[in-house]
Amino acid sequence: MLMTALDTLYHKVEKYGNVCVGLDTALEYLPHPLIAAAYDPMQAILNYNCAVVDATEDITACYKVQIAYYEALGLKGLELYAKTLSYIRFKKLLIIADVKRGDIADTAARYAKAHYSGDFEADFVTLSAYMGMDSLAPWVSAAQESGKGAFVLMRTSNAGRQDFQCQKLLAGGSVYEAVGDKLRALASSCRGECGYALFGAVVGCTESEEAAAIRKRYKDLFFLIPGYGVQGGGGKEAALLLDGRGNGGVVNASRAVLKAWKKNERIEGMGKREALLGAMEEVRSFVVTMRDDIRDAVEVLLSKEEIHAKR
Amino acid sequence: MLMTALDTLYHKVEKYGNVCVGLDTALEYLPHPLIAAAYDPMQAILNYNCAVVDATEDITACYKVQIAYYEALGLKGLELYAKTLSYIRFKKLLIIADVKRGDIADTAARYAKAHYSGDFEADFVTLSAYMGMDSLAPWVSAAQESGKGAFVLMRTSNAGRQDFQCQKLLAGGSVYEAVGDKLRALASSCRGECGYALFGAVVGCTESEEAAAIRKRYKDLFFLIPGYGVQGGGGKEAALLLDGRGNGGVVNASRAVLKAWKKNERIEGMGKREALLGAMEEVRSFVVTMRDDIRDAVEVLLSKEEIHAKR
Repeated sequence: MLMTALDTLYHKVEKYGNVCVGLDTALEYLPHPLIAAAYDPMQAILNYNCAVVDATEDITACYKVQIAYYEALGLKGLELYAKTLSYIRFKKLLIIADVKRGDIADTAARYAKAHYSGDFEADFVTLSAYMGMDSLAPWVSAAQESGKGAFVLMRTSNAGRQDFQCQKLLAGGSVYEAVGDKLRALASSCRGECGYALFGAVVGCTESEEAAAIRKRYKDLFFLIPGYGVQGGGGKEAALLLDGRGNGGVVNASRAVLKAWKKNERIEGMGKREALLGAMEEVRSFVVTMRDDIRDAVEVLLSKEEIHAKR
Repeated sequence: MLMTALDTLYHKVEKYGNVCVGLDTALEYLPHPLIAAAYDPMQAILNYNCAVVDATEDITACYKVQIAYYEALGLKGLELYAKTLSYIRFKKLLIIADVKRGDIADTAARYAKAHYSGDFEADFVTLSAYMGMDSLAPWVSAAQESGKGAFVLMRTSNAGRQDFQCQKLLAGGSVYEAVGDKLRALASSCRGECGYALFGAVVGCTESEEAAAIRKRYKDLFFLIPGYGVQGGGGKEAALLLDGRGNGGVVNASRAVLKAWKKNERIEGMGKREALLGAMEEVRSFVVTMRDDIRDAVEVLLSKEEIHAKR
């Protein structure tokens, strides 16, 4: 059997924890000394991205790169995007390309080519399934061949999730459960050695009850969990979406990591080199705290379940 | 009041008809003499795109460029995408960037920057609203400032539309109507002089009854109508989605236009220059036929309604 990207991710989670560092990097997220010293903004962002990767590779499961931040900078921005991916691939670390693409037939196949190979090659992508399951089919074929994977938008953590995702269906369940159920049905045709399906779901941090229900209903699905930190959710909420071994999902933080240096006010007054080192200390410290926060929450959850089982 | 891109589109439809030519151009869609003579595949595609634009500018409402075909070719492909848009902008013609992006908050704002300005500037984009209306909000602000617009995925013409879009909601209506209703509620805050909202909807060619119901329910929404030709729908189906003056929507054809040259078998045996001219004759002829097919269907529809009204 092919060793899939998901199996590698599973092992990374086991070894390094659940943190997925998001490289949604904008120039204004960097400490001022780094911005001021930059002869080229693209180079400054690339240097920062590479430094964040170097500072966190042994404490993170994978990196999520949000393409919108790079698309916004036009062709040069996408060159920066390609270089960032290239650096992560060179270090043999895992990439989730947060592209949220969604189209059908030939067009979907072109998108799969774009993000599973070539300049923008990543291990995983995020996808939107609004158009229907035929919008995922070309990705599934490509993933079966390459061992790559995807996370399909299911239930996100923004307020607007109520508009469509959380609407109840006449046939029972909600729209996001309709998406989840279709993904679950797909699982048997593309599964990694670790037992999880190559096509997982994006599930944001949410209220305890809903999170527990989602984890229970979708045992086959690996989750990409946004909403930690900036969007309000914490380790406790994330832990509910993980499995009994604390695996089965990665928890993303982007701006909270990239801007972790703000905690140290002295960094703004430092020279370029010193500021970068200082910033990376804060970045690493944030990720360690986050990793431990999630691990601790998983252990609390497990011991509660044990006590519950003994009663 | 600002003259919006939608007002220009409305006037173009009035003057030149409803055809939206799709530039989903792949090298293999070109006649062999053009492929064989190409020293650079990107240049060959660019030349073909420009030739199609030149051959159709007085018989089309706008051009839809499907970014997936260019993303699939990596950085060079996106340079080709930018050059294609640049050529259309230079000719002061209208562009729908078929990007189907969908994300929230800061990320959505970055996407809006990416596709409403800079290298990838277009007049309209296509969007997915699965994440919720907060995923559209940054685009709406940007559109209010710039007079640009968007088409939000509502009810597409692929078979997979049944999976989620067409599911019935407990609260009444279908998922796609929930999307449409939210768009309708948005209309009053961003409307062009022509009366239509700057945020229209993607509505595929569909069965007569459903099409008539959709047009009636969403009087404020301008439609981008895919599914003509290759996907089975014809002028009759499209006409039902237009308004009483045959306006209120553009009908897209992509591969059917780009590959129209296949009708003339002799083209494959021609020299490069001759083949391009021959291909453009067929492209133009296809678009004229399509434009007239839609116009005729609108007239048939109107005369039926008149007879009905007199009874």
